[in-house]
Amino acid sequence: MVGEKLMDRSPLKWIPLPRLARKKRPVALSPGSLIHLGQKRAESQEVTLIAYDESSVEIEKLRELPEKHHYSIPEKVTWFHVTGLHEVEKLSVLGEEFGISNLVLEDILSTGSRPKIEKRDTEIFVVSKLIVIEPGQNTVDVQHLAVLLLPDNVLVTFLEAPSPAFDPVIERIRSGSGGRIRRFGADYLAWALLDAMVDNYLYVIDRLDEAVASMDDRLQLDATDVDTGELYELKRDAGQLYRAIRPIREITGSLNRLDSPLLEERTRPFFTDLNDHGLQVLETTEDLRESVSALRDFYLAAVSNRMNEVMKVLTCFATIFLPLTFIAGIYGMNFEHMPELGVPWAYPAVWGVFALCAAGMLWFFRRKKWL
Amino acid sequence: MVGEKLMDRSPLKWIPLPRLARKKRPVALSPGSLIHLGQKRAESQEVTLIAYDESSVEIEKLRELPEKHHYSIPEKVTWFHVTGLHEVEKLSVLGEEFGISNLVLEDILSTGSRPKIEKRDTEIFVVSKLIVIEPGQNTVDVQHLAVLLLPDNVLVTFLEAPSPAFDPVIERIRSGSGGRIRRFGADYLAWALLDAMVDNYLYVIDRLDEAVASMDDRLQLDATDVDTGELYELKRDAGQLYRAIRPIREITGSLNRLDSPLLEERTRPFFTDLNDHGLQVLETTEDLRESVSALRDFYLAAVSNRMNEVMKVLTCFATIFLPLTFIAGIYGMNFEHMPELGVPWAYPAVWGVFALCAAGMLWFFRRKKWL
Amino acid sequence: MVGEKLMDRSPLKWIPLPRLARKKRPVALSPGSLIHLGQKRAESQEVTLIAYDESSVEIEKLRELPEKHHYSIPEKVTWFHVTGLHEVEKLSVLGEEFGISNLVLEDILSTGSRPKIEKRDTEIFVVSKLIVIEPGQNTVDVQHLAVLLLPDNVLVTFLEAPSPAFDPVIERIRSGSGGRIRRFGADYLAWALLDAMVDNYLYVIDRLDEAVASMDDRLQLDATDVDTGELYELKRDAGQLYRAIRPIREITGSLNRLDSPLLEERTRPFFTDLNDHGLQVLETTEDLRESVSALRDFYLAAVSNRMNEVMKVLTCFATIFLPLTFIAGIYGMNFEHMPELGVPWAYPAVWGVFALCAAGMLWFFRRKKWL
Amino acid sequence: MVGEKLMDRSPLKWIPLPRLARKKRPVALSPGSLIHLGQKRAESQEVTLIAYDESSVEIEKLRELPEKHHYSIPEKVTWFHVTGLHEVEKLSVLGEEFGISNLVLEDILSTGSRPKIEKRDTEIFVVSKLIVIEPGQNTVDVQHLAVLLLPDNVLVTFLEAPSPAFDPVIERIRSGSGGRIRRFGADYLAWALLDAMVDNYLYVIDRLDEAVASMDDRLQLDATDVDTGELYELKRDAGQLYRAIRPIREITGSLNRLDSPLLEERTRPFFTDLNDHGLQVLETTEDLRESVSALRDFYLAAVSNRMNEVMKVLTCFATIFLPLTFIAGIYGMNFEHMPELGVPWAYPAVWGVFALCAAGMLWFFRRKKWL
Amino acid sequence: MVGEKLMDRSPLKWIPLPRLARKKRPVALSPGSLIHLGQKRAESQEVTLIAYDESSVEIEKLRELPEKHHYSIPEKVTWFHVTGLHEVEKLSVLGEEFGISNLVLEDILSTGSRPKIEKRDTEIFVVSKLIVIEPGQNTVDVQHLAVLLLPDNVLVTFLEAPSPAFDPVIERIRSGSGGRIRRFGADYLAWALLDAMVDNYLYVIDRLDEAVASMDDRLQLDATDVDTGELYELKRDAGQLYRAIRPIREITGSLNRLDSPLLEERTRPFFTDLNDHGLQVLETTEDLRESVSALRDFYLAAVSNRMNEVMKVLTCFATIFLPLTFIAGIYGMNFEHMPELGVPWAYPAVWGVFALCAAGMLWFFRRKKWL
Repeated sequence: MVGEKLMDRSPLKWIPLPRLARKKRPVALSPGSLIHLGQKRAESQEVTLIAYDESSVEIEKLRELPEKHHYSIPEKVTWFHVTGLHEVEKLSVLGEEFGISNLVLEDILSTGSRPKIEKRDTEIFVVSKLIVIEPGQNTVDVQHLAVLLLPDNVLVTFLEAPSPAFDPVIERIRSGSGGRIRRFGADYLAWALLDAMVDNYLYVIDRLDEAVASMDDRLQLDATDVDTGELYELKRDAGQLYRAIRPIREITGSLNRLDSPLLEERTRPFFTDLNDHGLQVLETTEDLRESVSALRDFYLAAVSNRMNEVMKVLTCFATIFLPLTFIAGIYGMNFEHMPELGVPWAYPAVWGVFALCAAGMLWFFRRKKWL
Repeated sequence: MVGEKLMDRSPLKWIPLPRLARKKRPVALSPGSLIHLGQKRAESQEVTLIAYDESSVEIEKLRELPEKHHYSIPEKVTWFHVTGLHEVEKLSVLGEEFGISNLVLEDILSTGSRPKIEKRDTEIFVVSKLIVIEPGQNTVDVQHLAVLLLPDNVLVTFLEAPSPAFDPVIERIRSGSGGRIRRFGADYLAWALLDAMVDNYLYVIDRLDEAVASMDDRLQLDATDVDTGELYELKRDAGQLYRAIRPIREITGSLNRLDSPLLEERTRPFFTDLNDHGLQVLETTEDLRESVSALRDFYLAAVSNRMNEVMKVLTCFATIFLPLTFIAGIYGMNFEHMPELGVPWAYPAVWGVFALCAAGMLWFFRRKKWL
Repeated sequence: MVGEKLMDRSPLKWIPLPRLARKKRPVALSPGSLIHLGQKRAESQEVTLIAYDESSVEIEKLRELPEKHHYSIPEKVTWFHVTGLHEVEKLSVLGEEFGISNLVLEDILSTGSRPKIEKRDTEIFVVSKLIVIEPGQNTVDVQHLAVLLLPDNVLVTFLEAPSPAFDPVIERIRSGSGGRIRRFGADYLAWALLDAMVDNYLYVIDRLDEAVASMDDRLQLDATDVDTGELYELKRDAGQLYRAIRPIREITGSLNRLDSPLLEERTRPFFTDLNDHGLQVLETTEDLRESVSALRDFYLAAVSNRMNEVMKVLTCFATIFLPLTFIAGIYGMNFEHMPELGVPWAYPAVWGVFALCAAGMLWFFRRKKWL
Repeated sequence: MVGEKLMDRSPLKWIPLPRLARKKRPVALSPGSLIHLGQKRAESQEVTLIAYDESSVEIEKLRELPEKHHYSIPEKVTWFHVTGLHEVEKLSVLGEEFGISNLVLEDILSTGSRPKIEKRDTEIFVVSKLIVIEPGQNTVDVQHLAVLLLPDNVLVTFLEAPSPAFDPVIERIRSGSGGRIRRFGADYLAWALLDAMVDNYLYVIDRLDEAVASMDDRLQLDATDVDTGELYELKRDAGQLYRAIRPIREITGSLNRLDSPLLEERTRPFFTDLNDHGLQVLETTEDLRESVSALRDFYLAAVSNRMNEVMKVLTCFATIFLPLTFIAGIYGMNFEHMPELGVPWAYPAVWGVFALCAAGMLWFFRRKKWL
Repeated sequence: MVGEKLMDRSPLKWIPLPRLARKKRPVALSPGSLIHLGQKRAESQEVTLIAYDESSVEIEKLRELPEKHHYSIPEKVTWFHVTGLHEVEKLSVLGEEFGISNLVLEDILSTGSRPKIEKRDTEIFVVSKLIVIEPGQNTVDVQHLAVLLLPDNVLVTFLEAPSPAFDPVIERIRSGSGGRIRRFGADYLAWALLDAMVDNYLYVIDRLDEAVASMDDRLQLDATDVDTGELYELKRDAGQLYRAIRPIREITGSLNRLDSPLLEERTRPFFTDLNDHGLQVLETTEDLRESVSALRDFYLAAVSNRMNEVMKVLTCFATIFLPLTFIAGIYGMNFEHMPELGVPWAYPAVWGVFALCAAGMLWFFRRKKWL
């Protein structure tokens, strides 16, 4: 339990740290001149080819740049999965091979560009963010993902670095001979990848939600135990997640309404489903932000309440001693003619006054509910 | 009265505890592979068959999985009410029997999925949340409800566990020979169930509204009597309710506009009415949240006012004794040449100074309205 | 002036007290079974018949339930004004007589149902809230109003209890022989009644606005004179008014756009005008709420400022006496070797030190603008 | 500079004081019975006739009510400018002369009615607010303005009282022989008047903006110099302005889209331009409100910061003297056996302790940055 | 690092200082009379001619006003770049030469007018704000930019003063023989200039984002190190930027949807791209404002927390000494019969009481977590 808490309290590390304004291409550069914008996230650029039909699967790490005609057979689904975006020239060659326009290649390379969907006559192009958090880890891996659906059952995907997010899909292809993914086309594969992406959003939300619940518990126990910085961090994390996920609405909505020869009728219900998931993820993220706000309000109110309580008790304390000290001061005066000073029972009487005074004030404070 | 209050103050227990991010199906699983997501809420999975026409009613707990052709006669309304969603294989068989696609079955099984409505050519499918609070209890039972309207007057409903929410409808079917429910078709039955669901929303709202009114009364009497935690809980409850109810707008709105052969013309006004109820429920929930916010504002203002008052009185108190103590201190000094000390009436005179000083300050504070 | 203030300060009494969640019909009840939901507001249920054409007016309290064919002549406008909704059976008979469907009758009886407009082929049905405040009184009378426009110039209105709100319209009918109301049909009468309803909204708004203005004046004079509870009450009143008035937008908007044979072309501009009034009333209510918010902000700022001022003055005061008391304490010490004690001018010198010290601190506080 | 400041600080006087709920016509009154609602703002009701074509201008204060046929020649633009709305009978006659319906006349007379635009077949009717602030003055003159564009190049305008707002337009007509205003028709004149109205909005905004800038400067110099009441007044002024200007969007938007034979093609770009101005004025007003909010936030933060600073310094001060006074108190005790009292260097040693103690605490406070 | 911080802390200087209400043309002026509104920003008005086709580039500072027919050949792109707007007569001549209407010229000259786009049959006219911040500088240069696309590949741009913002575009024209900019028409050039404008927005956002990040770091280290004024300045800067950028949505959106013969099909994707950039810039600005708000919340909470902590420690301190001083005061009393005074170990015993008392209270405060 304590370990759980500690895990939740360790702040999330976002890689790369999301910045509002992203590096943009140098202005002097003509558009269409390709340049990689972003960190180098992978050691080397790799292309994995996964080709399959109902009866056979072929998974291969390509050593050279693929030639399309070499691999692509319309009867098979051919998926080129490119990881690493820093070797621009290779991508340029790849682009030419697959007939990808330079503007599209630019969007693939600009890792800071806004998630969006573009539908052209012979391609559907989706840019989005893949957000992966490994179970038990605190590192949130935010990657630029581009999915390009081409005719003849060809799918090309681009990712900044290798990620485990798509492993389950690959596993499903490999193992599920005769399963739906093997019977359907590249559009279904595109759906499966985007659905995996949305699933991974849910895992990050889940993680933050756990942090919120754990902080809620701690606040209920002892509000002063929580630090302002922690709450602020939670709020920032929720905000960053929201900003990264926000454009998903447009993308899944578009895909749902899209009328393209690249999308078969039988995969349509899956994209409708994807849209539902997208909306749910968005709503959940908004609810998460609201929860964090509510936590913050509660925290502030609790801290302020506690502070007030402290001040009240202490001030009451001070107020009780003020008249007592005054009385003691009176009999510390050096007047020659102070008849009380000579009375034998005066000293105990003053003690009585002290006691009465203190008791009276205590009673008054209790009645007023100040103590 | 006290009992009333105590009841209202006992916090609501939500079952299951609504979490923002719900467990999702494992990513590796191919969609269409059925898996139950959520807690096991019922002991065993049961199917109740309620078949009726104008003249006869038949209510039967089925021991085996129903075969559709066995029961369904188009002239009769046939309602299969399934409670318990954990026995996946049985549901799968049922699905095949009734021609329910796997995607629909998945939505039925994923108890965390978002309320929605789907209209296909030969079915209307509604997923929603049934929220039931038993009178006098504090347990809010949130269940995943699926309603599937099929041709030939067949209605299939799925619920996580048995619930008293639909008992009145069943009672109406049983008793009301010749009543409207017995004369109309399965679409009317679907309306009756959804209307019962919306009615139950109102009961929960009503319960929270009572809690708000009771807290309002307590705040008016003595703001400090209320605890921050209670207000926060009320806010959270209102928020959870709102999140659960929010999608009802889409559902009832869709049903109202829906043009489907499954909905007869004569039931149309009832769905319009349902839409009105849905909107009213939503507006009321929003108003509830606003009331809670207003309560919170009032509470904070009242607490802060009270604190200020306490501090003011106490500080005035302290300020009165400071000069008095100073004067006493003066005549406690041991200078050899202090002419006042030898004057016989000096001591009573100092008492006079004390009294004047205190009275003057009291008068000043009163005039300034600080006391 | 004082009387004015006192009047404004007395809180409004809402009858019935608006509650968020209203009692709903028992779920087990089949829809269409009529039941009165709400308080019994009138002693007995009465039907007033007002029939008129350009040349004659007939106003009659009907002792028995009216038979439509008996009274209604298409050339005359026939208005049946029903007050009191608790005698359900009578209403049921009336409904049958006028061909009012049970669903409409239900909406008439459910005093908590949401204001709305329904247009059917042969009727226009408006449910709304009549909100009346008598001048000089504090009681806000909120009544459920149903207006049913039928063919052949028949208008039926239902009200929970008699109300003075429609008296001016009746007066206009009675006195204004040859006036527009006597020349136009039942649609114009419906407009006149709804316009009177909107006018009465303005009177309530006006009353609250006066309360806001009066509180504003009091805040400007002396912010601490105002109580948090009063502001909260004002806010709650404005909120309740807003919630009751809010649906007017739909109703007047619909009527403005409505294309129905029941509405003559010549009354059209009046419904456009009604829509303008409706929008103005809504905007004004929103502005009212904003004014109350602004008042509250100002109040909080003023109270906090005043508190700060009090604390500042008092703390300065305390700070001045602390060093003085310390100095007095020094010379109260009983050391044998304190050379100052024997110096003849030491005592007056200490007084000088006291004066200098106090003056120096006062000067410092003034320069820092703390006093 | 000081004069500037003083001018800005003097609060704006709104004439008439905008009230949320305006006096409405007595309910008993049949609509169409004309009655003037609002203050009497002008001494007497006057009609100014301005008739012009490219070659000649005629400006005349009419002593009697104009007869339309007498003045209006389609080749000339004829502008009847009515100031003063309290002589209802005259307006009624005028209305008949010009074929103005009673409903329109009512809108002209109800000075509290909402700004709007109405397009009928043979007239365009705009009701709006003219808001004029004289340079160097603090009086904001809010007037009810009605503009009525009729066929045959006739324009009739109604204003509560004479206002300098339209003088520049009249000057342009008078002087600009051959200028555009003399060549174009009455629609251009209507545009010119509405544009002058929007310009005058900008002047009021400008005035408030200056007040905001000046208060900003004062806040930056010394936040405590500013009074809560001033900020509240600024906020209220900005709110009142916003409420008065808000409906301009509808009016200019409508005029821009309007397809009417009364609007010539060549004046169309001017109405597009007017729409731009209207939008800019609205946006600027919204920005103004936001600026005032930001000011208020800054003020509250600054005041609270300053207060905190004051409290901190003073409390540190108090804390330093507490232990000193305690030590002095110790050696003021009258025990017979206090060895320190007899030590010759004890007194100076105590002074050393005092100094050390004070210095230590000062150092501690400085290190903690509390001072 | 320190240098970085210092740079970020120096507030941005906006030139010209954005004011809400801008000087408007004198009302008396007939529209179409040209007048320059705004500061004189450039020494002299200059026209630079840049004419190019695929094979040749010609860049020339024109000494006289250009005659259109002299320079413009449809086969070449001819760009007239005017800097300085104060020489109105020259612009008027230019306008006539290029057939620019007076209304358009007015918009060019009114530097305070709202960004907008206007499409006429033979021209596309964009008014916007160019916002440039030089790297390492704090001066934000806000200029009024007008772009006018005319037939025959003519582009005319107007800028208040020379700016380095368009240098990269000019460089691309000059150097990139055979590049896209040289092969495409004037519409592509317009795109390139607007894209450069949007890029420059990003640089300013980036600068503010850095300031936010740097302030965030400082807040995390020591919240009291940050001044309210700095946060307010940041907020104001973000607000000003937002207001200046806000209209970009309309402009890029319009350009994207625009169907004009002046826009070639092949430049269409670039305008789609520009729209994406515009949206991203807007979203980023909104996120920036949100970040500043969050910073402010965190700052306020941190300052208040710190203040509370200070007060708590100090008050505890005071509370410890109050009873001690009281006890010392007791034995400073001069009663003749105080048996304790004669006891030899009384003095050390009192010291023991002092120690116990202080220790007890310290223990109590620690247990209550007040220290």
